[in-house]
Amino acid sequence: MTPLLDTLAALVGPAHVITDGDLCAWEQDWRRRVRGKALAVVRPANTQQVAAVVQACAAAGTAIVPQGGNTGLAVGSIPDASGTQIVLALTRMNAVRSIDADNLTLTAEAGCILHNLQAAAHDAGLLFPLSLAAQGSCTIGGNLGTNAGGTQVLRYGNARELCLGLEVVTPQGQCWDGLRGLRKDNTGYDLRDLFIGSEGTLGIITAATLRLYPQPAARLTAWAAVPALEQAVALLGLARQRLAAGLTGFEVMGQFALSLVGKRMPQLRVPFLGERNAPWCVLLENCDSESEEHARAGFEALLQAAFDAGCVSNAVVAENLAQANQLWQIRESIPLAQAEEGPNVKHDIALRISCIPAFVAHTDALLQRSIPGVRLVNFGHLGDGNLHYNVQAPAGGDPQAFLREHEPAINQLVYAAVAEFGGSFSAEHGIGSLKVDKLERYQSPVALTLMRAIKQALDPQGIMNPGRVLRA
Amino acid sequence: MTPLLDTLAALVGPAHVITDGDLCAWEQDWRRRVRGKALAVVRPANTQQVAAVVQACAAAGTAIVPQGGNTGLAVGSIPDASGTQIVLALTRMNAVRSIDADNLTLTAEAGCILHNLQAAAHDAGLLFPLSLAAQGSCTIGGNLGTNAGGTQVLRYGNARELCLGLEVVTPQGQCWDGLRGLRKDNTGYDLRDLFIGSEGTLGIITAATLRLYPQPAARLTAWAAVPALEQAVALLGLARQRLAAGLTGFEVMGQFALSLVGKRMPQLRVPFLGERNAPWCVLLENCDSESEEHARAGFEALLQAAFDAGCVSNAVVAENLAQANQLWQIRESIPLAQAEEGPNVKHDIALRISCIPAFVAHTDALLQRSIPGVRLVNFGHLGDGNLHYNVQAPAGGDPQAFLREHEPAINQLVYAAVAEFGGSFSAEHGIGSLKVDKLERYQSPVALTLMRAIKQALDPQGIMNPGRVLRA
Repeated sequence: MTPLLDTLAALVGPAHVITDGDLCAWEQDWRRRVRGKALAVVRPANTQQVAAVVQACAAAGTAIVPQGGNTGLAVGSIPDASGTQIVLALTRMNAVRSIDADNLTLTAEAGCILHNLQAAAHDAGLLFPLSLAAQGSCTIGGNLGTNAGGTQVLRYGNARELCLGLEVVTPQGQCWDGLRGLRKDNTGYDLRDLFIGSEGTLGIITAATLRLYPQPAARLTAWAAVPALEQAVALLGLARQRLAAGLTGFEVMGQFALSLVGKRMPQLRVPFLGERNAPWCVLLENCDSESEEHARAGFEALLQAAFDAGCVSNAVVAENLAQANQLWQIRESIPLAQAEEGPNVKHDIALRISCIPAFVAHTDALLQRSIPGVRLVNFGHLGDGNLHYNVQAPAGGDPQAFLREHEPAINQLVYAAVAEFGGSFSAEHGIGSLKVDKLERYQSPVALTLMRAIKQALDPQGIMNPGRVLRA
Repeated sequence: MTPLLDTLAALVGPAHVITDGDLCAWEQDWRRRVRGKALAVVRPANTQQVAAVVQACAAAGTAIVPQGGNTGLAVGSIPDASGTQIVLALTRMNAVRSIDADNLTLTAEAGCILHNLQAAAHDAGLLFPLSLAAQGSCTIGGNLGTNAGGTQVLRYGNARELCLGLEVVTPQGQCWDGLRGLRKDNTGYDLRDLFIGSEGTLGIITAATLRLYPQPAARLTAWAAVPALEQAVALLGLARQRLAAGLTGFEVMGQFALSLVGKRMPQLRVPFLGERNAPWCVLLENCDSESEEHARAGFEALLQAAFDAGCVSNAVVAENLAQANQLWQIRESIPLAQAEEGPNVKHDIALRISCIPAFVAHTDALLQRSIPGVRLVNFGHLGDGNLHYNVQAPAGGDPQAFLREHEPAINQLVYAAVAEFGGSFSAEHGIGSLKVDKLERYQSPVALTLMRAIKQALDPQGIMNPGRVLRA
């Protein structure tokens, strides 16, 4: 392989073709479940270099694994164990190329860290609303490659809906410039959305033009206890009607999930914890273009109406930003609290919002029957129909034995229930290499045939992130 | 061809394979510019019949032209002149299959007329926001096949953004059921958006699951005179900041376009017509989730701020629904007024909003230099960067001679300017057969290569609406 590495070193500079030392940061996945072995880590400085690297790899028949912040949860951005794949790391390409305030757009390179994009928009007096836990490390290229979700989807959509255009290097090393920043453009097939969510298997996203929004005048957070999931769905309906697009967040959390936060992070005071009328809590966020006073009045009228309608048993509205941040911190601490409590089996599923109460009742009962003492950590973006439906080992016992003994059966039970209710087994985390078999099992055979035809058409050599999404 | 027609008659019933009589409604395009000749018009009753018809046509190697309301503006839904293509008319498939109020979705068959979908949503107390001039005749299948735009794109997006899932019959006659109604689903490539906007060249959309919204409590309309296009852009920025998602419409109209309405439809009273400070007018729509009073206060504060900032020279807010409807009627009467005035060359273009003032100044000047006395009818959805930039013949003279002499040069000049400013030559009308050559000229060669590869991969026989979008 030396001739290829020499060529790559000539293209991007020897310092940016890394083969020695500890490559762990590029070779190991975010959750440290898998470690691969790279032929080299290649770090191009610009789109022309990406194109040249892809051309060289295509000529050599060498596979390319595009990588941004390497924070994915489906093991899609690390090389396999063969030592024959190069990691194409986009982190040097981190420029914000331009902001067009009148057009409400920002154009940035793929390696920009999400938080830096948010900051660039903020500095221009505008808002880039994509927001998720890994925002300090993940890159916009990875966000688009996986069609990331996060906490603002209810109002602003997934990463897909926030993107007006892409620059992409194809598997042949050609560069497609689709960065015109237009809101309407019906000139042929929608290539943009084909690359978004394709996890680097059809080409390499090198830059994107993104939608910006005006900053809201006020952002308010409330916390409501609801007597059952059915009432959480009813509260969502009321909130959408009364707050319309002002409703930017609607997160649901089960009492057991919150009890773990209370137990493991006692410094966070969880409202209504352990109260009889609070089997579920909802965090609501209301962004207002007018004033904090108007936002507060809107929230109070909504919660009063919900109380009158029996959807809400108790509620508080944060008095200030510190209180609001603490409420969000409770929500965001659930994964850590759950990890501290011991092993669990995670699921990132989506359902029609109307099906969620019946799905949870049905699946909880099946799991409790099949594994006595099992504990259900259930929380998620109810406004998007997206649940993080996680199954925690019974208290006590051997954690590793639990996973060994039960993980495959739990996955099978949960995913079968998801399929029965017409849901998705991967709402916002994608397929990567971890869920290729699930895609084959649960995706429609006609859809799989179409996807394979597209992959074959665009990447006949099979060099772009092979084995991810579709089996190589 | 008789064996095929016999097979089709057996599949859908002899009454629904039409070969005799006047087929004009199916063979002629909406603007009556082209008439083709169909082998037959086939009218399936359901998705299974569509699949069977496609299988029979694939076996016979017969091309299929899918057709909904046949209201397209790019001659994409009529057969060519050969008499060998069948028209697959979806208008019998017009059922609203279901409405899921808690999930805010509606599932309907492709042949549903848009207005009937709006009515079904309204009857359920909800809103389906897609709205365009042809809504009494066009079908949702056609709206999705062409990714239709319309007057509510600023707030709700194009048809694409309003669709959560599709049911599609592939060129092999397989049925893909993607109607799960999920807001998040990252399980492989985005087939939905590939079929949306592909104008029936990759498969036949037979049903769709669409997003619904709560109905607003109030809808208010205002009309503002602005001293120049730059101020219209500034007013848009102010309106987006102050009204946020409440701003559902922002239409700009040049004085000459409005003068034609004043001249041809004297019963419509056009505000500020002929006034010196009103070279451009803007129609704004504000939908409010709270109350009409709140909407009015928001509008008045916005217009006062815009007046103070020098963006607006005069403005009125409609006092009631009748006044609001009349303001919209003025906007919607421009195409008819223009047709009555004589021949003109139409363009449906998109640009970055920030570029529009410079584009218009540049292109107006070029046209006026090249055709003395030419008149520019300029109006459009400024909030989406979409202009209907139409070139009207000089007053007097021979209308047909004008088109003969100037149409090709006008198109070339306008599209070259659009390309120079990084815009799109087809914002919301698509490609059809009318703009295939423009796609070849103005679309990026890399994008065209990708599109051709996708077409070849999904429809290797080339039987789906051949010659539309891409040359056969």
